[in-house]
Amino acid sequence: MTAGGQVSRYLALFALLFGAVAAKADPLPSWNETETKASIIEFVESVTDSEADTFVPQEDRVAVFDNDGTLWAEKPVYFQFMFAMDRLKAMAKDDPSVLSSDVLKAAAEGDMGAVAQSGEKGLLEIIATTHSNLPVDAFQAEAGDWLTTATHPETGMLYTEMIYQPMLELLRYLRDEGFTTYIVSGGGVHFIRAFSEDAYNIPANQVVGTTGKSHYEVVDGEPVVMKDPGIAFIDDKEGKPVAIDAHIGKRPIFAGGNSDGDFQMLEWTTAGEGPRMAVIVHHTDAEREWAYDRESHVGRLERGLDEAGERDWLLIDMARDWERVWPRNP
Amino acid sequence: MTAGGQVSRYLALFALLFGAVAAKADPLPSWNETETKASIIEFVESVTDSEADTFVPQEDRVAVFDNDGTLWAEKPVYFQFMFAMDRLKAMAKDDPSVLSSDVLKAAAEGDMGAVAQSGEKGLLEIIATTHSNLPVDAFQAEAGDWLTTATHPETGMLYTEMIYQPMLELLRYLRDEGFTTYIVSGGGVHFIRAFSEDAYNIPANQVVGTTGKSHYEVVDGEPVVMKDPGIAFIDDKEGKPVAIDAHIGKRPIFAGGNSDGDFQMLEWTTAGEGPRMAVIVHHTDAEREWAYDRESHVGRLERGLDEAGERDWLLIDMARDWERVWPRNP
Repeated sequence: MTAGGQVSRYLALFALLFGAVAAKADPLPSWNETETKASIIEFVESVTDSEADTFVPQEDRVAVFDNDGTLWAEKPVYFQFMFAMDRLKAMAKDDPSVLSSDVLKAAAEGDMGAVAQSGEKGLLEIIATTHSNLPVDAFQAEAGDWLTTATHPETGMLYTEMIYQPMLELLRYLRDEGFTTYIVSGGGVHFIRAFSEDAYNIPANQVVGTTGKSHYEVVDGEPVVMKDPGIAFIDDKEGKPVAIDAHIGKRPIFAGGNSDGDFQMLEWTTAGEGPRMAVIVHHTDAEREWAYDRESHVGRLERGLDEAGERDWLLIDMARDWERVWPRNP
Repeated sequence: MTAGGQVSRYLALFALLFGAVAAKADPLPSWNETETKASIIEFVESVTDSEADTFVPQEDRVAVFDNDGTLWAEKPVYFQFMFAMDRLKAMAKDDPSVLSSDVLKAAAEGDMGAVAQSGEKGLLEIIATTHSNLPVDAFQAEAGDWLTTATHPETGMLYTEMIYQPMLELLRYLRDEGFTTYIVSGGGVHFIRAFSEDAYNIPANQVVGTTGKSHYEVVDGEPVVMKDPGIAFIDDKEGKPVAIDAHIGKRPIFAGGNSDGDFQMLEWTTAGEGPRMAVIVHHTDAEREWAYDRESHVGRLERGLDEAGERDWLLIDMARDWERVWPRNP
């Protein structure tokens, strides 16, 4: 055998080994080897195998995900609300007259008990005050700045460090397999867009969320889209399928959520013909994250827990199924 | 020289010739060689040349187009309204009690004069009656069926044959150069989605339009998104930049329109930083299409005509700039 022939044989052997390794590359390395992970991979393989009856063409591989509690944490309250409180304090520093009601005063003082007692009306007042009367661009820049500095009161991490590593891998895996991944969130669309591209690789046009009122005007010759007080559309519960129809125009084949606010989105997704998958992130991990479901005031999960079995929805047991939670361990 | 060598030389020559032809392939063959065509190509080349100051990364190459009068014809009235009239007649055949008002009776009899006299209120009543109380899927199937059989009262062509060949080429050219092409129309989003993919290669999630009210419900165990009477959002004039923000989340760098309903969309697009282009289809061709602008009740173009020059917006003179109008000459 010539030296050249031997090199060729080594190269062939190398290619064989490398091919075997590549074929086994784990798309979900932060997931434990449980039934959950196997089910997800089985589903993705079934819809991408062009020889199978279950094959779904690439343009129909639409996947939708809730955000709060599904892609990132939501305790003690939605992070967008933490932003609203911080922005209210900053606004009051510049102009104390902005605190024109008791609930706004309580919020600026960090009196969460009083804020909680004010109920939905109080929350909407805080959001209206802190999310309006500025152009969309300026609002998103402020939210983006806040996210680079503000830290979580319990973990001390940046909020964007509190996205779930296993879900990041799931998003990437789906995209690698020809899915288009959307966020369909009860959170505000402009707030989410301030970080969705960097954090999740999900561009602005694939973020569907609750929308505030807004209007177009020309200010000193410069056209702007201005955020107004008040809600135009609440993207929660029955609103999620309506928003999916309006924005995406196709029924998803994969949906991920974590609370009863996602119930109708999962129901809408899985009632379609052909292969469908719905997953629910079940917060079972008091040690690494939080453990909550039926009794929680954020991310309440009751009907979803009761009906997941009969509906063939997959419960992701965070404590059991996730090898790690955060991208960087704290 | 061997025979093989000669073949090689011919192949090389062929590659050279073919390469030269390919390099010169005309992206806009149905456009006459006017300044208009040159300006469009110059713009596209300027934003796609990675060496140039004017380069725009692919993810920011967002192009938005009005539909009626910009991508397809709109005379004598919006084609969606022709559909509504036909659907009303069909509904009345099944159940005459649907004609519950004078304007609905007039519409079903084809009395366009009486319909026109009823004004916007009458039009909205006809749309509400014919565009509601059925699931979105069923509505889109009906609209799709209608488009395969209904013909235009003057040209005898199918409505989908009355899309503009030069604009089809422009859409494809932009996509070939890394743009994402959106429709942003005053027409109904569900009506446009019934044909946008087939006609324009624009998928449902890239269609932004006027939206009717709708709700989610479970009917006999089957979840549906039902179309309701009434308008949720009018995607016209100041509404267009608001809808672009809500749906796309980025300011376009290219906008095409034809009427003053598109003015704010063009204004919003071209006021951004960096290279921007706005084009207006000016209907100047009474022979092959229609000639209208300031006085027309559909597609009225007045402010756009007056200000196009000072704003550096490109007027497409249909008679002068388009070598052909329709994909198939009638």
